[in-house]
Amino acid sequence: MTQELENTLKVAQQGFEHFTHGLATGEWQAFLDMLTEDFTFWFPMGKFHGLNEGKERAREFFEYVTECFNPGIKLASLDRVTSNETTVVFEFRDEGLLLGQPYKNRVAVSFDVRGDKICSYREYFGSDGKSY
Amino acid sequence: MTQELENTLKVAQQGFEHFTHGLATGEWQAFLDMLTEDFTFWFPMGKFHGLNEGKERAREFFEYVTECFNPGIKLASLDRVTSNETTVVFEFRDEGLLLGQPYKNRVAVSFDVRGDKICSYREYFGSDGKSY
Repeated sequence: MTQELENTLKVAQQGFEHFTHGLATGEWQAFLDMLTEDFTFWFPMGKFHGLNEGKERAREFFEYVTECFNPGIKLASLDRVTSNETTVVFEFRDEGLLLGQPYKNRVAVSFDVRGDKICSYREYFGSDGKSY
Repeated sequence: MTQELENTLKVAQQGFEHFTHGLATGEWQAFLDMLTEDFTFWFPMGKFHGLNEGKERAREFFEYVTECFNPGIKLASLDRVTSNETTVVFEFRDEGLLLGQPYKNRVAVSFDVRGDKICSYREYFGSDGKSY
């Protein structure tokens, strides 16, 4: 494995740990600290559907996620991790409560890495929020 | 890159070509020929939501896709390809007509490779079918 591949994977894995910690606890600062200033993300639906730009928008989004998924979403399983020199995709299943109702989903998040930061990610849903 | 990584990527890329050819033309035979007998796939919604097992089920699904997306879905862009020893994820955007209405989506498909075949895949949606 080249050094670039290794670094990308390492940074993304650290990012994914902070990401799932944020989902579980509502503590997003460690994840936000890993984002570049020009960070962008794509989300599949709702208020944040489509392209979202900037770290402040990300902070707003993750606070919204935590409000919706009180008391937090648990990672149920990490199914696959794939990568190249710049991008790492995590396929996982999660579960929790969405506005008080049982929630389960299959998710893929694709993190783009630049140096020791995450500069963008894309989120994809593999189920309907009710099963995985 | 190890030989296993190389083979997995090569097989998956061939599979993805046949897959997008099927989406565009309704000709699925070349893709079906690449599937193992115990092939499984996960789809995010509708009649084929969840886990689907077997090649016959796959044939049924792809015929259904072609009926729904007449006259075919075009690959608009291939955004990222990531891989490991057994799995390759393709992030792409596609467009066409769904039951006669304009359709656009962001999609991730994750192919698992065994030998020179695809033994399973998982599909994830990154948008709402109306934009990418």
